[in-house]
Amino acid sequence: MRNIDEDTITQAVLATLAGCKDDRLRTVMTSLVQHLHSFAREVHLTEAEWTQAIGFLTEVGHITDDKRQEFILLSDVLGLSTLVTAQNNAKPAGCTEATVFGPFFVENAPEYRNGDDIANGAVGLPCFVSGSVRGLGGEPIAHARMDVWQADEEGFYDVQLPSTDGQAEHRARGHLRTAEDGGYHFKSILAEPYPIPHDGPVGRMLDALGRHPWRPAHLHFMIQAPGYETLITHVFREGSDYLDSDAVFGVRSTLVADWVHHASGPAPDGTCPEGGFYALQYDFVLNPLAGG
Amino acid sequence: MRNIDEDTITQAVLATLAGCKDDRLRTVMTSLVQHLHSFAREVHLTEAEWTQAIGFLTEVGHITDDKRQEFILLSDVLGLSTLVTAQNNAKPAGCTEATVFGPFFVENAPEYRNGDDIANGAVGLPCFVSGSVRGLGGEPIAHARMDVWQADEEGFYDVQLPSTDGQAEHRARGHLRTAEDGGYHFKSILAEPYPIPHDGPVGRMLDALGRHPWRPAHLHFMIQAPGYETLITHVFREGSDYLDSDAVFGVRSTLVADWVHHASGPAPDGTCPEGGFYALQYDFVLNPLAGG
Repeated sequence: MRNIDEDTITQAVLATLAGCKDDRLRTVMTSLVQHLHSFAREVHLTEAEWTQAIGFLTEVGHITDDKRQEFILLSDVLGLSTLVTAQNNAKPAGCTEATVFGPFFVENAPEYRNGDDIANGAVGLPCFVSGSVRGLGGEPIAHARMDVWQADEEGFYDVQLPSTDGQAEHRARGHLRTAEDGGYHFKSILAEPYPIPHDGPVGRMLDALGRHPWRPAHLHFMIQAPGYETLITHVFREGSDYLDSDAVFGVRSTLVADWVHHASGPAPDGTCPEGGFYALQYDFVLNPLAGG
Repeated sequence: MRNIDEDTITQAVLATLAGCKDDRLRTVMTSLVQHLHSFAREVHLTEAEWTQAIGFLTEVGHITDDKRQEFILLSDVLGLSTLVTAQNNAKPAGCTEATVFGPFFVENAPEYRNGDDIANGAVGLPCFVSGSVRGLGGEPIAHARMDVWQADEEGFYDVQLPSTDGQAEHRARGHLRTAEDGGYHFKSILAEPYPIPHDGPVGRMLDALGRHPWRPAHLHFMIQAPGYETLITHVFREGSDYLDSDAVFGVRSTLVADWVHHASGPAPDGTCPEGGFYALQYDFVLNPLAGG
């Protein structure tokens, strides 16, 4: 410890982990230190680059608050989120695939009933969403909790919009429960492509890398039911721009669905919206918990 | 891009870097993505651990401000700072070794002249520091700028102390210039071991790892002179606790020096401090710039 150099530093750090009583933490930190050091050696990281990295992470930390999570964005655009999601959500064939959670989920979003309009004033073309939630054996799952959230036609989630009283109003976001037959249906708005927030350090990084910040049009779902693995996923809109270059690597071909345009009514709720409406039908299949 | 899984995600991310016009940035990011993904695969990082990591980095960001740099602390305790310092500061034998910068340097510290008391009220036993700054060929370096900073006997740097007017007063910190013969001398206080700030996320991490946050007693120097590489280093106090377990891996045996205790005066400034004083003599050798 009195003569550490660029060759011996890694072993010196690992030696300090010997006293860690948490086996899993020691395993994770050992690998982290080895890869961090290997990276710095491989590229011969300079002091100026190290200083730039410290400044970058500081900016990521400072722009992050209870409404904006720039570290999740960073993880997303580096593909780490997709990797972690994928390696922890291997499911049997036939189950709906999971994809990245994203930074815009909100706890305690308002409760709706089947048939309700969850848009709650969010701007966009009317879109009627319906389908079913079943288990892998085909059994309908009644009373499954379904959280739904999406951006509006301008590409903003409700939590990104300014609010007058400091309390964001929930728009195009809520939760409902499946009916006895596992069915669900609600009204919302058409999802459109949008850029991830790119006015911060992650946006500047993407720019420096020659990458765009756009995501293809999608609707977020989290579906929870006793006896089944929780499913966190999106449904993507077939034909959307950026399906082949999602900035956060979230697209799975099985999650791309037709959002059918109907030029005229009547819509499922009996109305005839001017300009027509869209309809999305998507069935989810949950993975039973082992031993469930 | 429509069927990314845990095996193909890395290549998908690397493919997006093809458009990066900055060769060095592309090289660094390619290595970073590969090692980040290898780490996540090697330990099979779980979603709960990923969430914990996002929360940890968020805390590191939020505790960081213009006086506290928790990301540098994190880099320090993971040995990254030492690795980057070492691999960028290989010097010919005979030159003074560099070590970590640390998070407590301040730009524009007050100017002093040789013989001044830079303690400026910082609490500690009197310590007289002297020596020379020379080039590798033995030539004295006149007018070299020497920045000095250290903690007080309670283990706090001035910037860690509360201030009444929001402006920290500089204590045990300043810069001076070597004389015509390359010599320098100033009065300060005896350096003592101290813990790095450990009331934040990095401190909790060290605790979870079974590591202590202490550093051996040391005095920071940054020495700059035209025609020479800037030297950023410490001088450590022989016999100090933690010389063999520095929390930030900064010790080099060539940087450990005797801080001689004199039980009675007169001290170099002619006074006879009650309780005696310490004296440190240390000569620095700078590396000439190539072509200089």
